Amino acid sequence: MPQTLLTPAAFAATDLVDHHCHGVVEHALARPEFETLITESNWDAPAGTSVFDSQLGTAIRRWCAPLLDLDAHVDAERYLERRAELGARDVNERLLRAAGIDRYLIETGYRGDDILDASEMATRADASADTVVRLERLAEQLVGSLEHGSAYAEAFRARLAAEVTTAVGVKTIAAYRLGLDFDPARPTDAEVAAAAEAWMRELSAGAEPRLEDAVLIRFGIWCAVDAQQAIQFHIGFGDPDVDLHRCDPLLLTEWLRLTRTSGARVLLLHCYPFHRNAGYLAHVFPHVYCDVGLAINYVGAASPQVIAESLELTPFDKALFSSDAFGLPELYFLGAHLFRRGLTQVINGWIDADEWDAATGESLVRKICGENAMRAYQLEPDAVFGAGR
Amino acid sequence: MPQTLLTPAAFAATDLVDHHCHGVVEHALARPEFETLITESNWDAPAGTSVFDSQLGTAIRRWCAPLLDLDAHVDAERYLERRAELGARDVNERLLRAAGIDRYLIETGYRGDDILDASEMATRADASADTVVRLERLAEQLVGSLEHGSAYAEAFRARLAAEVTTAVGVKTIAAYRLGLDFDPARPTDAEVAAAAEAWMRELSAGAEPRLEDAVLIRFGIWCAVDAQQAIQFHIGFGDPDVDLHRCDPLLLTEWLRLTRTSGARVLLLHCYPFHRNAGYLAHVFPHVYCDVGLAINYVGAASPQVIAESLELTPFDKALFSSDAFGLPELYFLGAHLFRRGLTQVINGWIDADEWDAATGESLVRKICGENAMRAYQLEPDAVFGAGR
Amino acid sequence: MPQTLLTPAAFAATDLVDHHCHGVVEHALARPEFETLITESNWDAPAGTSVFDSQLGTAIRRWCAPLLDLDAHVDAERYLERRAELGARDVNERLLRAAGIDRYLIETGYRGDDILDASEMATRADASADTVVRLERLAEQLVGSLEHGSAYAEAFRARLAAEVTTAVGVKTIAAYRLGLDFDPARPTDAEVAAAAEAWMRELSAGAEPRLEDAVLIRFGIWCAVDAQQAIQFHIGFGDPDVDLHRCDPLLLTEWLRLTRTSGARVLLLHCYPFHRNAGYLAHVFPHVYCDVGLAINYVGAASPQVIAESLELTPFDKALFSSDAFGLPELYFLGAHLFRRGLTQVINGWIDADEWDAATGESLVRKICGENAMRAYQLEPDAVFGAGR
Repeated sequence: MPQTLLTPAAFAATDLVDHHCHGVVEHALARPEFETLITESNWDAPAGTSVFDSQLGTAIRRWCAPLLDLDAHVDAERYLERRAELGARDVNERLLRAAGIDRYLIETGYRGDDILDASEMATRADASADTVVRLERLAEQLVGSLEHGSAYAEAFRARLAAEVTTAVGVKTIAAYRLGLDFDPARPTDAEVAAAAEAWMRELSAGAEPRLEDAVLIRFGIWCAVDAQQAIQFHIGFGDPDVDLHRCDPLLLTEWLRLTRTSGARVLLLHCYPFHRNAGYLAHVFPHVYCDVGLAINYVGAASPQVIAESLELTPFDKALFSSDAFGLPELYFLGAHLFRRGLTQVINGWIDADEWDAATGESLVRKICGENAMRAYQLEPDAVFGAGR
Repeated sequence: MPQTLLTPAAFAATDLVDHHCHGVVEHALARPEFETLITESNWDAPAGTSVFDSQLGTAIRRWCAPLLDLDAHVDAERYLERRAELGARDVNERLLRAAGIDRYLIETGYRGDDILDASEMATRADASADTVVRLERLAEQLVGSLEHGSAYAEAFRARLAAEVTTAVGVKTIAAYRLGLDFDPARPTDAEVAAAAEAWMRELSAGAEPRLEDAVLIRFGIWCAVDAQQAIQFHIGFGDPDVDLHRCDPLLLTEWLRLTRTSGARVLLLHCYPFHRNAGYLAHVFPHVYCDVGLAINYVGAASPQVIAESLELTPFDKALFSSDAFGLPELYFLGAHLFRRGLTQVINGWIDADEWDAATGESLVRKICGENAMRAYQLEPDAVFGAGR
Repeated sequence: MPQTLLTPAAFAATDLVDHHCHGVVEHALARPEFETLITESNWDAPAGTSVFDSQLGTAIRRWCAPLLDLDAHVDAERYLERRAELGARDVNERLLRAAGIDRYLIETGYRGDDILDASEMATRADASADTVVRLERLAEQLVGSLEHGSAYAEAFRARLAAEVTTAVGVKTIAAYRLGLDFDPARPTDAEVAAAAEAWMRELSAGAEPRLEDAVLIRFGIWCAVDAQQAIQFHIGFGDPDVDLHRCDPLLLTEWLRLTRTSGARVLLLHCYPFHRNAGYLAHVFPHVYCDVGLAINYVGAASPQVIAESLELTPFDKALFSSDAFGLPELYFLGAHLFRRGLTQVINGWIDADEWDAATGESLVRKICGENAMRAYQLEPDAVFGAGR
């Protein structure tokens, strides 16, 4: 029997919240720099090869080219020429506005000087934008101003409290700096003071302020718990600084038990290839949410499969959308575009198999696109059409 | 070229053995209690959300509603109203009989006082029912009757021997209590006596009898090996008491080497999201079988994908069917219904791709539905139409 | 809109390089011996069952039977009768030539006396064949000729240098002998001498030369790094000697960091069920390549899914083809046939979904079939039509 399928109109019924992304760069990009922004590798591809020969590169040629007035599947060289002809600002505006993202939650802790800030992003995208604070960056900004390790704990708490008067949540990169098998227990004040003192000694000896101390990273996370924040965790793949086998979200299980009733919400970002594990955690822990951002862009045409897997155990009220885009407007556009296409394909597959009806699909779309992020971040609905517009 | 596809008749050619499930409850269920039975979480969903908004909830609204004379996709509230109108016994009979399960192997060790026993299940379902004994429960029932730890080993062996004169197999929840990275070696008599003595001291001091001692849990498993039993292992996801990263069945590898020639058979239950790993173990170890029960219900419309993955490396003679249903008759019905639908879809996909013929598919259906369980549990064919009917 | 799909002609545009396989046996095979060659198990299937009842067995009956003038899906008994009628040499020639593999890279370290060598394989297959040297076998062949452990390092280096004047790469089975969580550091000369001395003492005491010492296995790998070789690693599933949970390629992360700029290339073999993890490593490390050989044969009809997953993060310039066939010509034929069918199905699925164009697909086919192997092994193009023909 013919089923009523989900249509693009399902997405028009809700605002789309990108709950984790960064800002775009806005300068002329030569091919090498562009290529570094479409790979998670930190190094050049082998001689004679190009990172355009990938799912993401193919998706850029397919979907972004027409937005720059080119044919779909144009070659990379021509694509980059056209990009240069239009100029960075025009390209940013075209692709960001085509993304159809209504609200950006922008994490500001990574290469903040190279990218547009939240207010500029809001303008370019004709959308609203809020900020998310990186806990480790906060510590790195703070530590230089202290005289004694014993002042660290109080100073950090105060700084965090000040930040979250405007920021809508926090982010931790414990996955990168420690691995997710970190000690789940709350560190004691004495441990914090001693660790801060040790770090300050390193800084006095001339070290760059880069927070790698396990006690202080854990302390930052626990401060966010106490402040009942929405706490984003990098999970799963990323650049090769990460030990991916230590980024399985299941390693957070004990910490999730300890924080379940705290009032904090935990947002598991990216999660690939552990997205099924993340879905399990979102299923059993009331305060856990997850997404497959970043992965959708990188797996490109294969993203419906990843989206489907992420919707196996994850409750419909716990799945989120993010692009995790950084630098290139292509990544925001594709993050949203491939998400909408993939989610539609997955839901319509279930409707077509006579398992779902369209109403269930439409409800899921509203939840993932916006309602779940609104709940997890305790966002005010009005603010969606706020300062950025 | 058009292929001959598998039809529902393929399933009529064999009895369906649910090799791992529990009993149903039979009392009026208010919405909160019903919701706790359709999630693996132990806690309430976030305020304003419902566990009905999930793959399992959607499958209930789609497939169970018509069996209660409602439209498919009816809302949860109406579904529960109708359920209350009909009464627990009528709902149990309708859904259990619609499940089309011919033989239930019922594990009795979990909340046995709250649910129907095997004989009652057989009556409700118009099917036959055998029992499977939980090893840890056996120990907990036994320990209070002993005076010295030195008597534990012999008493446990005797009790197990008595139980398996009627039970068709045993179950262990070592995954929950220890993690599957337990020491694979057989504990010595002295270790067992000492561990039992220590446990008895705790009980004398007023503790509830809950077996968490690694030596005694391992001893129970080894007793079942020596008794050449069919031994069910909880594997993979479940409620949040589990440390899921310690429930990968690969952690059993060394123990499987030690028990390969024992005559025992090992049944890996559920296995999601490690079902490919379970398939590998079933592939290389002659005494290992596996299923994706529990997962099929929870992933709902996405279950064909999980079923397909479970049939990559698993030999056709090693795959089993289970619902792992507990409490709600919906879970037995959906366990069987989604299994039949999903398996049909997967096999027909392979036939349609000109990789399989229908005879191969029909053979696989017979094996998974019943033949493999009959072999693994050394069941008598006649008993299928036994006491329960 | 109708898309131009990939056709079989896409594969005619490139030579197919099987970058990792072994040789065929060429003697009459009774059913038990044949069955041992179509399973990774080391032991008999349960009484009353056959390893033919598997994805691989089904694929043999479907695809190989017609090449022996039988109907597709013929039963196993008839298949083996016909095989015996034709004789091993005829069957080898039929199936190897039908495989359409143009160049074989043959690893010679496993049961070399039982199988055809590279030159014989080239003749049977009407193709060219090169060799890959197993590092652990090299050590085992060498150690008996030494008088002191202190001579081991230099002797091994010299032997390796001699071997790679003709061999195109090396293979390590560290996954089997150590697990991939081995110490990534380069062992010191003193450690090597001491370990060799200890091994030589075991041999003097009558032990068979089987290299299991971690220092010497790691040393062998580091010698290959220094020699800037193409280094194949067994990854993921295989026979039950392997502890599969210690064969996740992510465990190599630190070693990959240490060797990134060495000039060596690292080829991750098989990788199932960790192929997504392998794809991540190939994505971020310029010197890493991967394949899903072995798995394609064993998962049979389900192989398109595995192929699709392997092409999520893997750059198109880093994916390779291998059969990992050993013993039976069926395994080379199916390795290539199912690879071509599966890759075509996956790419055409993406074209059909309007995500890819045919040109992108054709380019990927050329890369995986041959170009990537040519780069990774630094093969001379002319040699493809070399000595073997």
